Amino acid sequence: HKLFPNDMEPLLKTLKAHNIRVLHIIGGNDSAATGLSVSEAARADKYELQVINLPKTIDNDIVLTDHSPGYGSAARFISQATFGVGRDAEAMGINSPICIIEVMGRDSGWLATASSFYKKTDRDAPHFIGIPEVIFSEESFMISIENAYRNYGYAVAVVSEKIRSGEGNLGRENPPTFTDAFGHSYFESPGNYLSDLVEKRLGVRCRWEKPGSIQRSLMDAVSTTDREEAYELGQKAIEMARSEMNEVIVTIIRSDNKKYQYSIGSANLKDVAGKIKYLPENYRPNEEGYTSDSFKSYLRPLLGNPIHDTEPIFNLL
Amino acid sequence: HKLFPNDMEPLLKTLKAHNIRVLHIIGGNDSAATGLSVSEAARADKYELQVINLPKTIDNDIVLTDHSPGYGSAARFISQATFGVGRDAEAMGINSPICIIEVMGRDSGWLATASSFYKKTDRDAPHFIGIPEVIFSEESFMISIENAYRNYGYAVAVVSEKIRSGEGNLGRENPPTFTDAFGHSYFESPGNYLSDLVEKRLGVRCRWEKPGSIQRSLMDAVSTTDREEAYELGQKAIEMARSEMNEVIVTIIRSDNKKYQYSIGSANLKDVAGKIKYLPENYRPNEEGYTSDSFKSYLRPLLGNPIHDTEPIFNLL
Repeated sequence: HKLFPNDMEPLLKTLKAHNIRVLHIIGGNDSAATGLSVSEAARADKYELQVINLPKTIDNDIVLTDHSPGYGSAARFISQATFGVGRDAEAMGINSPICIIEVMGRDSGWLATASSFYKKTDRDAPHFIGIPEVIFSEESFMISIENAYRNYGYAVAVVSEKIRSGEGNLGRENPPTFTDAFGHSYFESPGNYLSDLVEKRLGVRCRWEKPGSIQRSLMDAVSTTDREEAYELGQKAIEMARSEMNEVIVTIIRSDNKKYQYSIGSANLKDVAGKIKYLPENYRPNEEGYTSDSFKSYLRPLLGNPIHDTEPIFNLL
Repeated sequence: HKLFPNDMEPLLKTLKAHNIRVLHIIGGNDSAATGLSVSEAARADKYELQVINLPKTIDNDIVLTDHSPGYGSAARFISQATFGVGRDAEAMGINSPICIIEVMGRDSGWLATASSFYKKTDRDAPHFIGIPEVIFSEESFMISIENAYRNYGYAVAVVSEKIRSGEGNLGRENPPTFTDAFGHSYFESPGNYLSDLVEKRLGVRCRWEKPGSIQRSLMDAVSTTDREEAYELGQKAIEMARSEMNEVIVTIIRSDNKKYQYSIGSANLKDVAGKIKYLPENYRPNEEGYTSDSFKSYLRPLLGNPIHDTEPIFNLL
């Protein structure tokens, strides 16, 4: 959990009691911030401690690394889920023609945008992608969904759990469903909110699916790239500890995109802590659910192998 | 979609116009009923037509067949999803300790019960399974979840989308979220309802995940058994058409459970139409989320290969 100033003293005491001199923290931006604050507290206390972080987040929003382990596997799940839900909705026809998939991603649209990987034609899902980097317009959303529904008899939208309208997080018009001990409030999900909106406007049933933590934990969907790199990064972190590095995070540096070659490097925790790597403009999806070839080239090796063949095996009537 | 009496005349007219003499219908109990009614209408009209159905439903509730293609793949997904969500909730600790997974299954608990496949110890998910065959008790549910939460710091429940309390479908106290053109009403899901209940009673955050149609369409989770059998059943249906069978459904007959041997047979549509194969008593989960070894033996070959190894690779502190 997030460290508070009062946590530091017992934490240092525990490290000292066991004579722990190397601390590896695995996680995202918050974990980098945690690593930095522990390192600073140890220095102030004149306790020799090496803090070496490892990147791990399905959000893929850590700066100074090409990508973070965890992302490839979650992206593999979401890309297949979107394609599959599309074919399912197409087959179900009027009984269940529209579906919204709510995807994780706190601040960035890396994961939601991966849903476009298998989209080759206008007919394929997704027909709209909502990401936190772009102010969400209910009108644009409805136009995309209605167009797809009228043209193909079904429509699929993918939205990040934290998409924002001009007024704030979507669905926050209602009171929170739960408030935790820290005072953090949890609100109705945007998937639920948008599903109601579609049913009211179009008068057809709109499902919404929320794979939740399934998208980051399904054993069948582990990316082979993720699995190999996570292991390799762990080995590198140990090497870095042996060569007396401190206050750093292990990073992945892509050197060749076509053949996917990479090396492992490091960055200072203070250059990473609390920062967010947003989805760059040229990777963002358009309003019909397409993303760019450059994003697909970036994503492809991270998905691992095998990649499924989605060419149609027969022509639809 | 469901056939209405008025659909029969245009349907027969279309069959005649194209001189179609064999009709294959792929689906569940409703599809068997459809096949039967088309066959009867053709006979009444003295139009020679062979109707040969093929079983296909993730609900696995077709009578007179050992199982139905589709079930193994969805069961593969749900078994892994439950195990993974359990390990995820365990790792998240107090931030997100309880999770409810809402699983498909209209009348039967075959799919929800598959969630117990990887459970080996009391600690492993799931800690409760709710199925349509058993009247749902909020008290039993809360006791199971609270016990797991107190003992292990986290808890996972799996519930069928159509679990029923003594008063009717769970969550039906509220008005329907949508009513379609046929007058079918769609209600708030039991996962949402139970999640609210847990948060109110235990004062901790309770997620609920709804994989929805993802559970029946994720390419990575296709069971190898399903894929092979679906193809084989298709070939058999053609053979049956050639040998002039009529008003039948192709079935799978398991001859040896230990080695998983089966043969392909057939049943009369009138013995299948509209009937439901409920989960038998000796396959039902107990109140701690375990099911019987006999169910696991039944399920194992349907999940296909490979089966993941879930033995812990290190001891928890």
